[in-house]
Amino acid sequence: MTLDCDSPKEACGIFGVYGVENVAPIIYRGLFSLQHRGQEGAGIVVSDGSEISSVKGQGLVNDVFSRQPIDKLVGNLGIGHVRYSTTGSTRIQNVQPLVAECVDGLWVVAHNGNLVNAAPIRKMYQEAGAIFQTSTDSEVLVHLLADPMYRSRPRRVARALAELEGAFAFLLMTKNCVMAARDKQGFRPLSIGKLGDGYVFASETCALAQTGAEYLRDVCPGELVVADQAGLHSSTFVDEDESRLARCIFEMVYFARPDSQVFGENVHSVRLKYGEQLAVEHPVDADIVISIPDSGNSASLGFSRASGIPLDFGFIRNHYIGRTFIMPEADARSSGVDMKLSVLAEVVNGKRVVVVDDSIVRGTTIRRRVTSLREAGAKEVHVRVSCPPVRNPCFYGVDFPTRDELIAGHEDVETIREFIGADSLGYLSLEGLFLSFEGRHCFCDACFSGEYPTEIACKDGKQALESMSNELNLDI
Amino acid sequence: MTLDCDSPKEACGIFGVYGVENVAPIIYRGLFSLQHRGQEGAGIVVSDGSEISSVKGQGLVNDVFSRQPIDKLVGNLGIGHVRYSTTGSTRIQNVQPLVAECVDGLWVVAHNGNLVNAAPIRKMYQEAGAIFQTSTDSEVLVHLLADPMYRSRPRRVARALAELEGAFAFLLMTKNCVMAARDKQGFRPLSIGKLGDGYVFASETCALAQTGAEYLRDVCPGELVVADQAGLHSSTFVDEDESRLARCIFEMVYFARPDSQVFGENVHSVRLKYGEQLAVEHPVDADIVISIPDSGNSASLGFSRASGIPLDFGFIRNHYIGRTFIMPEADARSSGVDMKLSVLAEVVNGKRVVVVDDSIVRGTTIRRRVTSLREAGAKEVHVRVSCPPVRNPCFYGVDFPTRDELIAGHEDVETIREFIGADSLGYLSLEGLFLSFEGRHCFCDACFSGEYPTEIACKDGKQALESMSNELNLDI
Amino acid sequence: MTLDCDSPKEACGIFGVYGVENVAPIIYRGLFSLQHRGQEGAGIVVSDGSEISSVKGQGLVNDVFSRQPIDKLVGNLGIGHVRYSTTGSTRIQNVQPLVAECVDGLWVVAHNGNLVNAAPIRKMYQEAGAIFQTSTDSEVLVHLLADPMYRSRPRRVARALAELEGAFAFLLMTKNCVMAARDKQGFRPLSIGKLGDGYVFASETCALAQTGAEYLRDVCPGELVVADQAGLHSSTFVDEDESRLARCIFEMVYFARPDSQVFGENVHSVRLKYGEQLAVEHPVDADIVISIPDSGNSASLGFSRASGIPLDFGFIRNHYIGRTFIMPEADARSSGVDMKLSVLAEVVNGKRVVVVDDSIVRGTTIRRRVTSLREAGAKEVHVRVSCPPVRNPCFYGVDFPTRDELIAGHEDVETIREFIGADSLGYLSLEGLFLSFEGRHCFCDACFSGEYPTEIACKDGKQALESMSNELNLDI
Amino acid sequence: MTLDCDSPKEACGIFGVYGVENVAPIIYRGLFSLQHRGQEGAGIVVSDGSEISSVKGQGLVNDVFSRQPIDKLVGNLGIGHVRYSTTGSTRIQNVQPLVAECVDGLWVVAHNGNLVNAAPIRKMYQEAGAIFQTSTDSEVLVHLLADPMYRSRPRRVARALAELEGAFAFLLMTKNCVMAARDKQGFRPLSIGKLGDGYVFASETCALAQTGAEYLRDVCPGELVVADQAGLHSSTFVDEDESRLARCIFEMVYFARPDSQVFGENVHSVRLKYGEQLAVEHPVDADIVISIPDSGNSASLGFSRASGIPLDFGFIRNHYIGRTFIMPEADARSSGVDMKLSVLAEVVNGKRVVVVDDSIVRGTTIRRRVTSLREAGAKEVHVRVSCPPVRNPCFYGVDFPTRDELIAGHEDVETIREFIGADSLGYLSLEGLFLSFEGRHCFCDACFSGEYPTEIACKDGKQALESMSNELNLDI
Repeated sequence: MTLDCDSPKEACGIFGVYGVENVAPIIYRGLFSLQHRGQEGAGIVVSDGSEISSVKGQGLVNDVFSRQPIDKLVGNLGIGHVRYSTTGSTRIQNVQPLVAECVDGLWVVAHNGNLVNAAPIRKMYQEAGAIFQTSTDSEVLVHLLADPMYRSRPRRVARALAELEGAFAFLLMTKNCVMAARDKQGFRPLSIGKLGDGYVFASETCALAQTGAEYLRDVCPGELVVADQAGLHSSTFVDEDESRLARCIFEMVYFARPDSQVFGENVHSVRLKYGEQLAVEHPVDADIVISIPDSGNSASLGFSRASGIPLDFGFIRNHYIGRTFIMPEADARSSGVDMKLSVLAEVVNGKRVVVVDDSIVRGTTIRRRVTSLREAGAKEVHVRVSCPPVRNPCFYGVDFPTRDELIAGHEDVETIREFIGADSLGYLSLEGLFLSFEGRHCFCDACFSGEYPTEIACKDGKQALESMSNELNLDI
Repeated sequence: MTLDCDSPKEACGIFGVYGVENVAPIIYRGLFSLQHRGQEGAGIVVSDGSEISSVKGQGLVNDVFSRQPIDKLVGNLGIGHVRYSTTGSTRIQNVQPLVAECVDGLWVVAHNGNLVNAAPIRKMYQEAGAIFQTSTDSEVLVHLLADPMYRSRPRRVARALAELEGAFAFLLMTKNCVMAARDKQGFRPLSIGKLGDGYVFASETCALAQTGAEYLRDVCPGELVVADQAGLHSSTFVDEDESRLARCIFEMVYFARPDSQVFGENVHSVRLKYGEQLAVEHPVDADIVISIPDSGNSASLGFSRASGIPLDFGFIRNHYIGRTFIMPEADARSSGVDMKLSVLAEVVNGKRVVVVDDSIVRGTTIRRRVTSLREAGAKEVHVRVSCPPVRNPCFYGVDFPTRDELIAGHEDVETIREFIGADSLGYLSLEGLFLSFEGRHCFCDACFSGEYPTEIACKDGKQALESMSNELNLDI
Repeated sequence: MTLDCDSPKEACGIFGVYGVENVAPIIYRGLFSLQHRGQEGAGIVVSDGSEISSVKGQGLVNDVFSRQPIDKLVGNLGIGHVRYSTTGSTRIQNVQPLVAECVDGLWVVAHNGNLVNAAPIRKMYQEAGAIFQTSTDSEVLVHLLADPMYRSRPRRVARALAELEGAFAFLLMTKNCVMAARDKQGFRPLSIGKLGDGYVFASETCALAQTGAEYLRDVCPGELVVADQAGLHSSTFVDEDESRLARCIFEMVYFARPDSQVFGENVHSVRLKYGEQLAVEHPVDADIVISIPDSGNSASLGFSRASGIPLDFGFIRNHYIGRTFIMPEADARSSGVDMKLSVLAEVVNGKRVVVVDDSIVRGTTIRRRVTSLREAGAKEVHVRVSCPPVRNPCFYGVDFPTRDELIAGHEDVETIREFIGADSLGYLSLEGLFLSFEGRHCFCDACFSGEYPTEIACKDGKQALESMSNELNLDI
Repeated sequence: MTLDCDSPKEACGIFGVYGVENVAPIIYRGLFSLQHRGQEGAGIVVSDGSEISSVKGQGLVNDVFSRQPIDKLVGNLGIGHVRYSTTGSTRIQNVQPLVAECVDGLWVVAHNGNLVNAAPIRKMYQEAGAIFQTSTDSEVLVHLLADPMYRSRPRRVARALAELEGAFAFLLMTKNCVMAARDKQGFRPLSIGKLGDGYVFASETCALAQTGAEYLRDVCPGELVVADQAGLHSSTFVDEDESRLARCIFEMVYFARPDSQVFGENVHSVRLKYGEQLAVEHPVDADIVISIPDSGNSASLGFSRASGIPLDFGFIRNHYIGRTFIMPEADARSSGVDMKLSVLAEVVNGKRVVVVDDSIVRGTTIRRRVTSLREAGAKEVHVRVSCPPVRNPCFYGVDFPTRDELIAGHEDVETIREFIGADSLGYLSLEGLFLSFEGRHCFCDACFSGEYPTEIACKDGKQALESMSNELNLDI
């Protein structure tokens, strides 16, 4: 859950409510709980059954909704979104939920994931004369919904969703209802909760807990759930592709909050077991185990328990780092200083230290931290990573760097160890990743294994869309 | 050029440049000179031949471009727009120029006027699945341009323009060229200037002068002018409808700046003659002639000259009134105070005063001013108005109130005189309006005469669009 | 009343109310009417008899009080101030009214003018250990009031005021009363009005009219007027120095609004007579008389009347120029363009033109305007100035440039004529300035004559203070 | 280090640098590291030897200096301050460092602590005519420095400091030097570091580490340290009062960052021992030990180690809570929801849980957390607090609530246990607090013991000042 430039970046969190009085503050709290899934923009759209109103903005949830108060958002149904931009600075147009006027009324869309066939659909509609408002892949759903081919038929939403390939958890709303859908391979999580007489949908269950909702179940792959005045209805817009279920293992490894249940598992418990397994796979003789807080916390506890090496707190996290520490450019000295974590020298001085981190992306952040541990007097620094080497880009919504920028994309473990300056380096094995729960075949681990669960047109689905969109690189 | 709520409001001013180095500051100055045509929003879009960039915002030109500097707008061609919103507070999405990505690249559109068939075209495209970004009538042109029916044919822009009915002066641009077009009836002015080796287009010639450009000629009704690397090309997208030319007479009466040439006439000179003619039509025995500054200035001078009654300055204008004088709500006392104009009591005290104003819309503003003249000691107050009674709404871009709100829409002159508290009231006759230059048949004077130069579907073209758009009443 | 850099700048306007319900919006309107006396900052301080509250800020009245609403300012007495900074950018600390906590409560001070002995008093108190909050000369009054020598004696305010030399109109307030004082020579105007059961004080009578107050009389030189629950009391803090009365003639010439009565005269009427006298002193054979709007309006009318040459409007003023036209730095072309006034070419083309302006300071602005008239086709340009050459700096609150920067400080009329490019140049004579009303001996005309009505220590009173203050050049 | 309303609030952090190139970014980083000591305002003042410049603002360090860039702060010496306001919303005037112009130049002051004799000194100077800029106790030092009695004598600063009673760590600066001083009883920490050829002063050593400085030593009680071009000089302004040394024990317990050395001890190590001792004093049979993150982390680790009960992470901290979670007022449901910490139900469900917190102030926060643990299924909840009951207010800079609001001020432990809903409640004993290091006699533990190390005039030194200042409750 760190925000370093070295960390992978999730694309979004979504949250919706139907059938509860004054939903705006509930959505606010829901989005706040999902803030770790996207920090670049946030939006809430609500309806009181006749009028739809919205507030959207760039930045953190708290910033957006303190600048633009949500008191005027009156409604008993609504959806919200937190976004991480994958293409430079987020344009306000791209902040979701998207609102579009079709001939039969307004449609509102919030999306988590990445559609691998967005580019051809977009191109098809543009060829037919359509105008796109955003450079996001999500907008193709709006055009599908507005397309008379789908619009005029029963099960319009289901038919539109069935056209989409790739990873998606969608929340949709009209003036009168909220809908939730997950792609047939189940890449991204999406859970359903009960709140009073109404219903709540959230990317992670932590947001249910934070809004007082009770967890009911997950939306199934290929399922479309509708909450309206008749209650909760379910239908299948496409058959769940059991042979190729592809839950994102990186949700377990890094994205999801430890207090969430994701794909039926508690994240903290899974990570704790990752730490235990890591201790089994890569034992080491050391004095203390420390975590890279907070994303390494659970695994470091597991490592300590399994190895018997005592846990200690070797890094102090500055809670005021917020989104960014604005470093004056002139200050060349600052480059080497880690303003987010400071070493607790008393703890590590003279010790053989095991440092547990959740993952390594570029390698530059962990390298700096190894250096700071040595400067604080650590005698040995053993890095343990609670997932395998990240070798491949993601086309389903995780904003990894390109393969060239992924250090494990082109270097072996020994070279990485040398680069980061550790005495030893151990990654959790791919097998170890799935030891603690069944069903590796139900997961996508392409970032580690390179086995993509969908066809990737030229393996550049995302890039193609991006480069097309680059033409539209202005604040229109 | 007053900003009172009693005044009619023009919809827009447009300005474009092709072929001059660093066009952004030139467009800035051009828009600044056209500020009187729209104060709610402003935008500039430029291109350097490969990249298009833009800055848009709500408010006055100076406010928008001091908040968002234009230094980063690099280009040798570009267009700009100032906008007055006709529907409540301007949404940022409606601020022009509109930028839309078609399959063959970006199109940029700035519009002055009102399209009377926008509603059916919009509806047609929405039925076909199109998504509209704005609630403006202008956006239909973008969809026409993107429509493969037009897009795939030669003379695409001309064909698209030919579909439009009503009043328009359009500036369009792509990465490589700037285009200018006027509707076949020539409602709105649009002039061409030469600046160095390049070309300038402006709603009024005053903007040419303020940017150092030399006036070449007006864009003709039904003409499409293209400025690109081959120079200036002209074509006709629809035959000029000579039988129904419909230049807006209200540009002469009120909108245009006195230093502009509009439809071939200098505005100040025309208004001066209006004043002279008014003195002929409605003579009065009085001590001084005063103007409602600044919109009555030219006519008051004419009245003074023709009548021999000396001109004096009876009102002082507060130059800091800016857009709005923010009156604290609690201050009930303020209702009767005119913060924009104050009477120069020394001038009017004990005098028989002729007050010359350009037009009367609701009648409430002139009434307040007659009252303040009496309070300052004026012995008699004779109101002279340099146009006929405004009796009918406009469907071509002038934001008059509805007929019910137009005082002359339902009251005769004597009743109006009584309402405003004047000793006498004289309006310029419809004939007088056209005495000073030829060609009444070339003008639209529907606001005075009720003779509309186009068919008006149920006479509510504008309203239909507005009510349709109201559904989209959110800050998406 | 122009804002050009070529124009002299007044230091301040002050406005106060006692004994009226909810004074804040009244003060707001009063300050708005005095906006021409200072555009860099504004403040309002009110009291409800027990609590004092205030809003202050940088910029125009409307900007300051729309950013910081005055609704929370509850009180039935209060004072306000508009300020023009004489020393670079106005620091927020210098924005008046000043509020200072003395041992016996809060004192609030608003000042128009310039104290010639502020520097030695400030130095004396600083030597004794005092800390100054601002770099303004006005603050010395606060320290005098807090000084036990004065504080412990009857007639404390009068004694403190008696220590001050130079030009001042002061408004003071405590929780319970409002006080008004003018220096013994009467440099700056200060008027008293009646509003309901309460009293109003204003730099100019135009602010009385705009708040619905009735003009009573001026505060006399050397008089201290107190408005409290016992009504209005008057006392003399120092004998009016009749032998050296020194009303600022520049208030007549330029500062005051035409609708104000200043020193017993209506400003418009005086300026009209200046124009008439100018026509007598400097007759010329010409076709039209035009004004530099708006400051030349009254005199141009007088010139036209006396000469028989018809008045016309040769310049159009852009009403949106606001405080500043933010010109992008990169735009070298802009230097020669006058964004505030544009020539009405139709009017001046081929004509022999008399241009009437109120004063010439540096000469660069009028030069640009003469040039633009010629470019518009004027055959001859005759400049007439409704005051004598400004040759000397002011130490009493007018922010003239230094003598070196005053073109008439070192050049004769013929050289100036050549510099500005006019065919002829005529200034009103010093005698002409006082023809229309009695009492030249009651006025300070040092800027024209060099005869200063007070001793000026090294003639650099103001500069001494400024240079001392420069040490405090930070945003503390 | 939590920000809850239930937590005590420190008054300030200070940081200074002398003799290093471009000090502003260093001070920025130093203040950022001390952010936990004050979040309401921040300021930096620097000097280049001739000019002093400053940036100050309300809010967090990052917010203040991203709104107002520090690039323009040029200097090789400077001081900074982070502030927590003890009286409602921080007025910008109160944000330190204070800058005051004395007759011999500018003095800059940054203060951590609380002066118990500020009120009489302030009153004395006000009686003598002084004007105070702020409502802070710190400003009296400026007036002492400006007082000719001190100003004219050698050792002026030392003499002024000797007048002050109570708690202070001061940084002072002039154009040419930086000074550091600690009160004779040594309430607040202040450390000296070496950075290149220059010197650094910081409230806590963590700020030295974060700026790359090497720790030299602490400023001694009663010592004045001057850094100027001659290097580092030390003198004693008052004899260290060894008999009544009064280091603030609450720095150990709560304020200081775990990675700081305070009063010669590493904070983390001390707190770890507090946890161990707590396990000895209040053993309990339980399944897991969890911390209230992050302030309870060190002690929970100690408790786990000493008791053998395994540590787990029972609460997840939302890192985006920032300063405040802006809760819409309408949302009554939110009252019971803890947006900062969420329980990890998987961890505590069905378990007997020991929760370790650093201190209890009002009791309402820990009560809510005990409730949330029970709702998550905890079978038993045993609260352990790593300090004794906080029973008494602080007059030396800790912003505790009043005794009435301190739950231990009027309730016994059993009643508190019942109030917070715990199965058992154990506080660390006063003896336990000092077991891990020598010298209880050198500490102030008045908040626990009620034994104040100075005379407190009516025990309301702080309150007296506050009530006096309330009169000045405006934004002057």
